[in-house]
Amino acid sequence: MNIAVLFGGSSYEHEISIVSAITLKKVLKNSTLSFIFVDANRELYLIDAENMKSNYFSNGSYKKAKKLILKKGAFCTVGLMGLKEQNLGTVLNLIHGRDGEDGKIASLLEFNDIAYISPRVDASVLSYNKLYTKLYAESLGVKVVPYSVLSSSDSRDVTLEYPVIIKPVRLGSSIGVSIVKSADELDYALDVAFEFDNQVLIEPFIEGVLEYNQAGCKTSEFELSIVEEPNKEEFLDFEKKYLDFSRDGKVGDADISAELKTDIQEAFKKVYASIFEGSIIRCDFFVVDGEVLLNEINPIPGSMGNYLFEDFEGMVERLINTLPKEHRIKIDYSYINSIQSAKGGKV
Amino acid sequence: MNIAVLFGGSSYEHEISIVSAITLKKVLKNSTLSFIFVDANRELYLIDAENMKSNYFSNGSYKKAKKLILKKGAFCTVGLMGLKEQNLGTVLNLIHGRDGEDGKIASLLEFNDIAYISPRVDASVLSYNKLYTKLYAESLGVKVVPYSVLSSSDSRDVTLEYPVIIKPVRLGSSIGVSIVKSADELDYALDVAFEFDNQVLIEPFIEGVLEYNQAGCKTSEFELSIVEEPNKEEFLDFEKKYLDFSRDGKVGDADISAELKTDIQEAFKKVYASIFEGSIIRCDFFVVDGEVLLNEINPIPGSMGNYLFEDFEGMVERLINTLPKEHRIKIDYSYINSIQSAKGGKV
Repeated sequence: MNIAVLFGGSSYEHEISIVSAITLKKVLKNSTLSFIFVDANRELYLIDAENMKSNYFSNGSYKKAKKLILKKGAFCTVGLMGLKEQNLGTVLNLIHGRDGEDGKIASLLEFNDIAYISPRVDASVLSYNKLYTKLYAESLGVKVVPYSVLSSSDSRDVTLEYPVIIKPVRLGSSIGVSIVKSADELDYALDVAFEFDNQVLIEPFIEGVLEYNQAGCKTSEFELSIVEEPNKEEFLDFEKKYLDFSRDGKVGDADISAELKTDIQEAFKKVYASIFEGSIIRCDFFVVDGEVLLNEINPIPGSMGNYLFEDFEGMVERLINTLPKEHRIKIDYSYINSIQSAKGGKV
Repeated sequence: MNIAVLFGGSSYEHEISIVSAITLKKVLKNSTLSFIFVDANRELYLIDAENMKSNYFSNGSYKKAKKLILKKGAFCTVGLMGLKEQNLGTVLNLIHGRDGEDGKIASLLEFNDIAYISPRVDASVLSYNKLYTKLYAESLGVKVVPYSVLSSSDSRDVTLEYPVIIKPVRLGSSIGVSIVKSADELDYALDVAFEFDNQVLIEPFIEGVLEYNQAGCKTSEFELSIVEEPNKEEFLDFEKKYLDFSRDGKVGDADISAELKTDIQEAFKKVYASIFEGSIIRCDFFVVDGEVLLNEINPIPGSMGNYLFEDFEGMVERLINTLPKEHRIKIDYSYINSIQSAKGGKV
């Protein structure tokens, strides 16, 4: 199976995308891999597998690699003889955050008729924005963590029960996120969040809440990961985040009742179907008073959450064989022809 | 002012986009215009202004025009000496329906750092899908026409008060839309709608409802069109739709109270701000019992609704001068460097 791992991007998570890509190089052992790097300026480079080391990117060596241009049907190198098509296989979109998760990469690939694993543009927009995620989930009957929304132009005289958690509506990871324990910390936390976005979500911060992650995709049928009980620390520091994005081992299934597991899996399936087809996503749930609440959708999880699956590489292959195909629109100019004929060819 | 009118697309509205582009050639008299045609296969062509006639496209003559490739910073022609950048100015996205309104074109332009007039990717996805439009509007406190949603896999034993209108959640114009007057017509109408989408909206069909359209954009301040009372016929046939998309005259303001006009304009501003910045859109409202309800957002109206504005060309120029700029993300590899230094350069 030919897979082109696409990583980097103009994103706050550019660096962890590099870590994710290096990890997948280790995980996808039986595939023929290519690596397409999107640098901070959104120039595209074709990276030799042997150069897939983090300092190759951080010290700028990647600029010596071949540049790529995306045109209809293929990524191309630009040479003296014009454009040369590169047959790189199905793209695995591994750009975390902006570009990868906001719908831009999906759009580029869809428009240019490149097969790809990634949420499509609509699924990307709904999961990249935490407010839209809530609206979407609620419309499906999936419960969400309660929230209110504040815009940067709104007055801040909100009545809240502390502690609360403040999140910019966009951006992944914990960028711009604060836990606010009392009213006198609110202004600063909002200032921080509004640095990153003009809308923020305010949610109750539930100390020690039960958290479970469910990853999966739909091939000919749903393929679900184990249910993971994630690291419970408030925030992961750099080192821990590095470990998290470079995981390639296996973890154990959470110790929960069969009933709760079913509830989590049913909520995952509702969220996934049908707009997330073609992607491997992870949904993060809270369980409060026995009720499963969607916290967030992670549309491109770190190293694709490979360690949560029994047969990750096999699943990727099955997904590649069942990717959604865009509906073909036939354009026959019957409308213009009918107008032309009515107007005697004068338009 | 240099403006590149981008039109065509892999869309059911491909042909009326051609009509829209021909109309804007007449309307934008004082600008330097280029024309970029996206054909049914999504190949890009640079069209000479003198060839902007509908039969140039319908008879395939456009294939003799220069092909374009979009790369970082510019559209380029491909020649013997490699790629040649074309300085075409700000793109005016005039692709109606798929590609233009679903976020793909916005993504391509944003990713490649081309200035453009169009809804951005998130605004596109929310307005292209009529269900998401409702969720978005409701979250802003803008009232919408009541609705229920049906998926193709749902059972059809819905209780409805007839007549109702059935709409695929995506697609523009009236494609796949039916008015259902009694229960025995429902199945057929749903079959038709599900041909185009796997989700449909069902809304009450209100005979003779008051309809008003408000177009506008935000430059340094909101610039609103007159309030238009649109053509009341149930469906526009081809000829009438042609007229509608080729309009370049002026129409009169609707004869409504100052209070209703204010309500319509306030609803428009709520919907527009802030995610539609950079675009000229039209919102279609119903008025029921004195209440303003959002019916649909038209993110790229026919010929940009030019005939609704006093000074359309001046407004386009002001919009070009106040387009939203993407936030720049600085990537300094501090994270990888810190890991490298902790691990002795071994990652």
